[in-house]
Amino acid sequence: MTINRQWLLAERPTGMVGPHNFKYAETLIPKPKSGEVLVKNLFLSFDPAQRNWMVDRKAYLPPVAIGEPMRAGSVGKVIESHNADFEVGDLVQTTGYWQDYVVAAPGEGPMGLVKLPAGVSPEMMLSVLGITGLTAYFGLLEIGQPKAGETVLVSGAAGSTGSFVGQIAKIKGCRVVGIAGGPDKCRWLKETAGFDAVIDYKNEDVNAQIAHHCPDKWDVFFDNVGGPILEAALDHVNLRSRVVLCGSISGYNATGPIPGPSNLANLTINRARMEGFVILDYMPRAMEAVQELMGWVSSGQLIYQVDLQEGFENIPATLQRLYAGKNLGKQLLKISS
Amino acid sequence: MTINRQWLLAERPTGMVGPHNFKYAETLIPKPKSGEVLVKNLFLSFDPAQRNWMVDRKAYLPPVAIGEPMRAGSVGKVIESHNADFEVGDLVQTTGYWQDYVVAAPGEGPMGLVKLPAGVSPEMMLSVLGITGLTAYFGLLEIGQPKAGETVLVSGAAGSTGSFVGQIAKIKGCRVVGIAGGPDKCRWLKETAGFDAVIDYKNEDVNAQIAHHCPDKWDVFFDNVGGPILEAALDHVNLRSRVVLCGSISGYNATGPIPGPSNLANLTINRARMEGFVILDYMPRAMEAVQELMGWVSSGQLIYQVDLQEGFENIPATLQRLYAGKNLGKQLLKISS
Repeated sequence: MTINRQWLLAERPTGMVGPHNFKYAETLIPKPKSGEVLVKNLFLSFDPAQRNWMVDRKAYLPPVAIGEPMRAGSVGKVIESHNADFEVGDLVQTTGYWQDYVVAAPGEGPMGLVKLPAGVSPEMMLSVLGITGLTAYFGLLEIGQPKAGETVLVSGAAGSTGSFVGQIAKIKGCRVVGIAGGPDKCRWLKETAGFDAVIDYKNEDVNAQIAHHCPDKWDVFFDNVGGPILEAALDHVNLRSRVVLCGSISGYNATGPIPGPSNLANLTINRARMEGFVILDYMPRAMEAVQELMGWVSSGQLIYQVDLQEGFENIPATLQRLYAGKNLGKQLLKISS
Repeated sequence: MTINRQWLLAERPTGMVGPHNFKYAETLIPKPKSGEVLVKNLFLSFDPAQRNWMVDRKAYLPPVAIGEPMRAGSVGKVIESHNADFEVGDLVQTTGYWQDYVVAAPGEGPMGLVKLPAGVSPEMMLSVLGITGLTAYFGLLEIGQPKAGETVLVSGAAGSTGSFVGQIAKIKGCRVVGIAGGPDKCRWLKETAGFDAVIDYKNEDVNAQIAHHCPDKWDVFFDNVGGPILEAALDHVNLRSRVVLCGSISGYNATGPIPGPSNLANLTINRARMEGFVILDYMPRAMEAVQELMGWVSSGQLIYQVDLQEGFENIPATLQRLYAGKNLGKQLLKISS
């Protein structure tokens, strides 16, 4: 067992990302140096932002280079350690890339290297305690600043981040309206995740339904989607409301520029604010969020839903599930037991 | 002399506003009641927002009704007083509407009724100490929050608000880049108003010129214009920069929705903020701004430029000058001596 399977970025995508953008490869297992550990990846995390990392433009992380393994978060097991803080057998979270083995060290790479707290499963670590949970927590509370009694609108509501945003907003005493695609996701959001109202953008008039479900307009819009849903939302901005620009998945696979909302003037009239944020800025404060999120999970106030696929060969196809809107909850893939 | 000349809103505009949207009328001079004064309007103020007040939609002020005189700020003279705080002959600022005479009282109407401070001319009161001066002051300092050494980009820079924004940013130690239309305005901004660099959007590639004049990108963009200029600016957002959404004059006379910027994702990547504001919210703090603005005018750090037209019959045509970009500085019209 000396082979490290990988999926490399073969070409930069135009239009919908898919298996054709990647290339399977085999290499030798890397060797950790002093201070480092060798991790065997067990679960890979799939995140909408990965499509953006494949494009050659300046952003908050450098683009993945052609011929390099695709960047991804992971949970794995330490199988060799040259760092006194880690023992063989420890479950850890790191930036594992699309491969079986990765060399990692604390403080290196976008995610560093952290041990899973006792009692925390890989699924929990990569969802509610991972990037999507932290994104929902800091994006909603720091940028959105919801107050009890306010209305919070969330797009991409059945995605991992969106489902946490809505549930945290409920915990904070807000009325929560979600926008998601298809009756299954909408039913889950209402019946299981406790949203007050849900709009099925595939089968309903989003603009009219926002008006219907937000009779007093909305105070916070947590936008994971962009595009026409953002425009529809901006027709129902309350005075001094806040838009959290978390992502715009609707445009990630576009082949050219997509027009923005024609009604930005509604921000002016309503003295409203639209603000972007990147979760990496909040990583130094991650433990603060993790403690509160774990508390809410323990008390049953916050549920997490995982869409778990299996098989190393399915890695590229699993990424596409995100942009096709196939996932309900956090998209993960198990590559090893 | 008992006739009160008026220009009434005759029909709601579609496309470019013009004289055809208004109707000349004569009525009797109104009678002030106890606590009120009768003002003879001398100077009318023209402001881009007036086009929006003519449209029947919910905004920060109710729309002007069909058949009513058009709403406008003014400076005039008190010719009859039933208020102990005002004497006949006092010069006052109020909401005079497009007419010779108006009944006004302190605290009533959007602008209330205030006496011009000693030594302040109507031109000064309606520009640097009026809506445009206050808009620049509070919009830049409260929403834009410029810090010394930062780069401030201003669109509509040769308009009254824009020219004050740039000059105040210079006073605060910023590097200032303006965007204006035509060589005359650009020359004035650079040679007289002290801007560091100017982009002529009618004759230059705005996107390329922003890159050229903002090598470290911009930290504050004060946007009076919207449309393609906003989109070009958003390609050069610095980390944690601020967009002050003051207005979007480029779209006020459009007959249908105009696509918004296709690159809002740049706000996300750069953790940037876009925020709308309405100057009426800051009127309780007006004196704070007026004192500082007067000080800067006295010391020669802040100049104000007035584009003064004359003649009651020219009122509707003067409004159009704003949207045709004909004015350099504050657009005023003198209707009486």
